[in-house]
Amino acid sequence: MAPSNTPIRRGTSRRQLLVGGGAAGLGAVAALGIHQLVSTAEAVATQPELNGAGTVPFYGEHQAGITIAAPAHALFIGLNLLPDADKDSVRRMFKVLSGDAATLTQGRSALADSEPELATTPANLTVTFGVGSKAVELAGQQVPTWLKPLPKFSIDKLDEDLSGGDVFIQICSDDPVTLSHAARMLLKDARSFATIKWSHRGFRQAYGSHASGTTMRNLFGQVDGTSNPQPSDPNFDSLIWEPQGWLRGGTSVVVRKIQMNLDTWDELDRHGREQSVGRYLSNGAPLTSSPEAPEAEFDAPDFDATTAGGLKIIPEFSHVARSRSSDPGERILRRGYNYDDAATGSQISDAGLIFVSFQADVDRQYVPIQRRLDELDLLNQWTAPVGSAVFAILPGCQEGGFVGETLFAEDSTSGATP
Amino acid sequence: MAPSNTPIRRGTSRRQLLVGGGAAGLGAVAALGIHQLVSTAEAVATQPELNGAGTVPFYGEHQAGITIAAPAHALFIGLNLLPDADKDSVRRMFKVLSGDAATLTQGRSALADSEPELATTPANLTVTFGVGSKAVELAGQQVPTWLKPLPKFSIDKLDEDLSGGDVFIQICSDDPVTLSHAARMLLKDARSFATIKWSHRGFRQAYGSHASGTTMRNLFGQVDGTSNPQPSDPNFDSLIWEPQGWLRGGTSVVVRKIQMNLDTWDELDRHGREQSVGRYLSNGAPLTSSPEAPEAEFDAPDFDATTAGGLKIIPEFSHVARSRSSDPGERILRRGYNYDDAATGSQISDAGLIFVSFQADVDRQYVPIQRRLDELDLLNQWTAPVGSAVFAILPGCQEGGFVGETLFAEDSTSGATP
Ligand code: HEM
Ligand code: HEM
Repeated sequence: MAPSNTPIRRGTSRRQLLVGGGAAGLGAVAALGIHQLVSTAEAVATQPELNGAGTVPFYGEHQAGITIAAPAHALFIGLNLLPDADKDSVRRMFKVLSGDAATLTQGRSALADSEPELATTPANLTVTFGVGSKAVELAGQQVPTWLKPLPKFSIDKLDEDLSGGDVFIQICSDDPVTLSHAARMLLKDARSFATIKWSHRGFRQAYGSHASGTTMRNLFGQVDGTSNPQPSDPNFDSLIWEPQGWLRGGTSVVVRKIQMNLDTWDELDRHGREQSVGRYLSNGAPLTSSPEAPEAEFDAPDFDATTAGGLKIIPEFSHVARSRSSDPGERILRRGYNYDDAATGSQISDAGLIFVSFQADVDRQYVPIQRRLDELDLLNQWTAPVGSAVFAILPGCQEGGFVGETLFAEDSTSGATP
Repeated sequence: MAPSNTPIRRGTSRRQLLVGGGAAGLGAVAALGIHQLVSTAEAVATQPELNGAGTVPFYGEHQAGITIAAPAHALFIGLNLLPDADKDSVRRMFKVLSGDAATLTQGRSALADSEPELATTPANLTVTFGVGSKAVELAGQQVPTWLKPLPKFSIDKLDEDLSGGDVFIQICSDDPVTLSHAARMLLKDARSFATIKWSHRGFRQAYGSHASGTTMRNLFGQVDGTSNPQPSDPNFDSLIWEPQGWLRGGTSVVVRKIQMNLDTWDELDRHGREQSVGRYLSNGAPLTSSPEAPEAEFDAPDFDATTAGGLKIIPEFSHVARSRSSDPGERILRRGYNYDDAATGSQISDAGLIFVSFQADVDRQYVPIQRRLDELDLLNQWTAPVGSAVFAILPGCQEGGFVGETLFAEDSTSGATP
């Protein structure tokens, strides 16, 4: 630790800059992209600040919690609408939930909050809402062709109780107490409209334990999230945002709970583990770069490079070789979290990844990648999807409006107003 | 946030000073006690530092993770020894587990660690071991009279699957990824000796979201942990540490998973909630002090004070009135964590407290308090213990030794050595 009272050079927090979208006014800096900002020397000098007071704007063209760097804790909830739900009731629900989210994310307590003190430390709290096809149908609007369960894949071991749902809520915060409280406030208000179908709680490295902006590691020990579309990419907006209709400014999310078999993974030697992904475990660099230099994480992999013996250095069946497409439009924004549920009996862990990706079109961007991985991906030997859901992530709204307003607009056919 | 490049006055991290015991060399400062150190102005000026590299010494007279301020995340595990366990096998297990803990807590990877990169960010990792009566019997040593399940209380709704166990492991860290990895390494090595009976994962406010040293809040919104024995107390050592025998320098732990019914709690108005505990929700101050001044949290409650109408200001049936004893030896060191498990169906939360307390003698210190609370405590209306376990927390060891060495010492009657 630095001796007390020593002034320490403080950089701008890189965390906010990582993907930048949600944080107002950072566009220009974010446009530099993550690669330029990553330098170990700078990272070490960058000290975190007390971030309990950190807030992310709620209102905007897009919802928060999508392009902004992921806080340490997240809760993903799939809700089923009650059988008697109709357009009016769902509109009422979204009005209330939007109001809750708008206040909670700014560190204020929602109406009728019994524990207002738990609301005063937002720690970068974001709340992001989505809908399944049933809600869109109730609204009498056009269901996007991709808004349906993913096609069945051969690797799937899906549990129906961990899949699907009519309404989606993603809650992220750097503080787990704040997260629990926000979830409760939202679920209290959702209760007259919907029941919980599933919820997944996930985590990444804690705020403050690494220099902000450090790519997360999953429980296989891999650096996970390196090759993600960046705001500096000229195609970024078209990769993420729906350009028209009621979903304009919205996107889609795929949420898959994927078990990772740490036991069998551990039987593999380090070389085998690196081959299966195509990247070094040490720094996440492609196998065609250096395993030592921290910046090498962001080097472009050379998929053509071969060993003296003529073998591909990055195996063709490795996860990165199979998941990367030559089509620049076939990319997704991954924002997953680790989970580690209570193990029982002779199990020693029940852990994995809550895989989360955002993309403008599931069928065009996500499904082809998943098909390739389903056909062949060395990682499949140690992973098994057990839950799966697809939602349309609603556009953002402006102050006075509510998330869902483009879908549940009051119209002549909808009868009484709330 | 402070503008970039502004030098900020940095105080010594108060986190390490809170209870101080485990951190070497802080005795003198810790002896000032928490009260003197808490001043809001100072707390605000104290910025957290990157704490991923933070380590707590493993070796010492006492195990770590008891008197040191609690990190943000914890995992509590109760293990059952395999049926064929004997003194030699349990000794072997503790040798291996001690070795793992000694390396992991110092940010080094244990032998045969498949994910060594997950070990390099200890973030104040501590590992603390305990035993139930069966392990002591296997060792042929005297079982402390209090080392048995707690007496049955009328409030208990115990689930056998969340209770008891032969071996106890407590793992704490400010980083949830580090915690998961450490748990896995330890459980891998325990696997040939024992199976998991139960595990509880808990959390407190994140490192860096509040000034360090801020007392935690539980999910009822209460400031929880204010009135705890402090190292400055002349009786501190005798309250916590066993003075003689194989447990000398050790202590006991009571671990109770206590459900908190947030739904019915929320039906109560704020006044009722404050009356049930006897402290203000705003700042945790006793009802006989000011609800505004932050320092008032540590004011001594005046249990005799009455209102103009002659009613006790701190109700006699409040949790603090019932839990506090006039006998200064009847005190416990509480170090609990919140839990928030996945809610299902029409439930909207399955949350509560992993109540954890350390005391030299369960029967003398813990049971009388629990008896009084069982008889009468307003809080009982909203809480229900569902899991319960008591363990002897082993003494610490020096480098070259292992935790458990006083219990599983190699002797002439124990036959072959490992
Ligand atoms: C437990 C399951 C999974 C694990 C452990 C995993 C792990 C990884 C790792 C370590 C990388 C390399 C670093 C990076 O760029 O982030 C990566 C890249 C990637 N993964 Fe996964 N992944 C999993 C599932 C999936 C799934 C289900 C998909 C989509 C269907 C997917 C799509 C991708 C993509 C698109 C990349 C970037 C490829 C590139 O452009 O270089 N992954 N993954
Ligand atoms: C879910 C269950 C419980 C909750 C929510 C709870 C909450 C609280 C709160 C808010 C305080 C006041 C602040 C403080 O000094 O920490 C407190 C104090 C205390 N509690 Fe609990 N508690 C629970 C269970 C227990 C149990 C099971 C015991 C022991 C049998 C216990 C023993 C104490 C003691 C000894 C004090 C300090 C009293 C004093 O000296 O002022 N509590 N608790």
